[in-house]
Amino acid sequence: MIPIITAFEQSPDRGQGLARDMPVRWALEEVGQPYEVRLVSFSAMKEAAHRALHPFGQIPTYEAGDLALFESGAIVFHIAECHVGLLPQDTNARSRAIMWMFAALSTVEPPIVQLEIATYLERDQTWYEQRLPMVEDSIRSRLAELSDRLGGTDWLDDVFSAGDLLMVQVLRRLSGSSLIKEYPNLCAYVARGEARPAFKRAFEAQLAVFTGKSPD
Amino acid sequence: MIPIITAFEQSPDRGQGLARDMPVRWALEEVGQPYEVRLVSFSAMKEAAHRALHPFGQIPTYEAGDLALFESGAIVFHIAECHVGLLPQDTNARSRAIMWMFAALSTVEPPIVQLEIATYLERDQTWYEQRLPMVEDSIRSRLAELSDRLGGTDWLDDVFSAGDLLMVQVLRRLSGSSLIKEYPNLCAYVARGEARPAFKRAFEAQLAVFTGKSPD
Repeated sequence: MIPIITAFEQSPDRGQGLARDMPVRWALEEVGQPYEVRLVSFSAMKEAAHRALHPFGQIPTYEAGDLALFESGAIVFHIAECHVGLLPQDTNARSRAIMWMFAALSTVEPPIVQLEIATYLERDQTWYEQRLPMVEDSIRSRLAELSDRLGGTDWLDDVFSAGDLLMVQVLRRLSGSSLIKEYPNLCAYVARGEARPAFKRAFEAQLAVFTGKSPD
Repeated sequence: MIPIITAFEQSPDRGQGLARDMPVRWALEEVGQPYEVRLVSFSAMKEAAHRALHPFGQIPTYEAGDLALFESGAIVFHIAECHVGLLPQDTNARSRAIMWMFAALSTVEPPIVQLEIATYLERDQTWYEQRLPMVEDSIRSRLAELSDRLGGTDWLDDVFSAGDLLMVQVLRRLSGSSLIKEYPNLCAYVARGEARPAFKRAFEAQLAVFTGKSPD
């Protein structure tokens, strides 16, 4: 059964692959699971039909048979549970990989999203310039801690996992910022993720939505 | 084997049970798993010994044999996987329960944490009063959507799960705000969670750290 995911009809990041369909596409590519994409407009996302699938009116969603999911972390986890390749077989290593999935989305991502909110929604506010350093410092703290833990290793816990997939994708949201450049091992980590063939296939597929050209 | 978790030596919320050891205690109580608690001071949390367990220098951590975890969502998930009672047996219902775990921590919690950051760290800033309505509106959007999805049901997906446990705990962070009172079904949902015997035992145990009295 070919799962169907949803993605933005009009890429708000002009094909940079920062939207939340990207980690789902990447996970599907890592495990070699073909998928179909249904594009959704901004207005359709907020309508009842889409909200029945995604109560928060966002993308992505995932449908396979009688299972419907939203929330990119949960979809990536479901894909990782159904296939070999994204979670270690060893039970302790598996728990740690899942730990990094939650860490990416619950601890590292929120301050990064705050920077995006400040940049896109609060740029014209009187407080923008004054408040920005506080937001950046909160990101810097997390990056410094993550950089210390990663050290000189390739991945967060021995072998590449769904935890790395989500963490790399979260860090990619800083690609327009100089903040991550302060941490060379994190830059190398992101580059390592982006060099994976599955990442490249997923990236090309989402880019094709923006350019209107087939990824082949 | 009795797992050991860490919690704040000095409760920053004066025993309201809003710190992140609370969902872990609650999960352990739901499945009937005894546990030990090691209290950590604010300074010790930032030292190397604790950071070896938790790279972001926070609580809780979870140690059982040769497994060490951080990140409350991941610890709750680990407990739910190792015991019966927090995740449905049916595979699709299980995936949906996990979906709600991620939704609680990745979608509903971040704007609530922003309100806490604004209240505690930005209250003296010139922009505080002006910016507050934007932060509150972002929470209100999420609450309205969650309220619509929950409707008149008891739990997010048929039976109580780890998804409800985390969502109730996230919504409890709004207990000092009037925002959640705009959504009576969410208030009833939180009350339903707080009425569970396992919640009460976990709450009393963390309160005892603050009062210095045994929960018995």
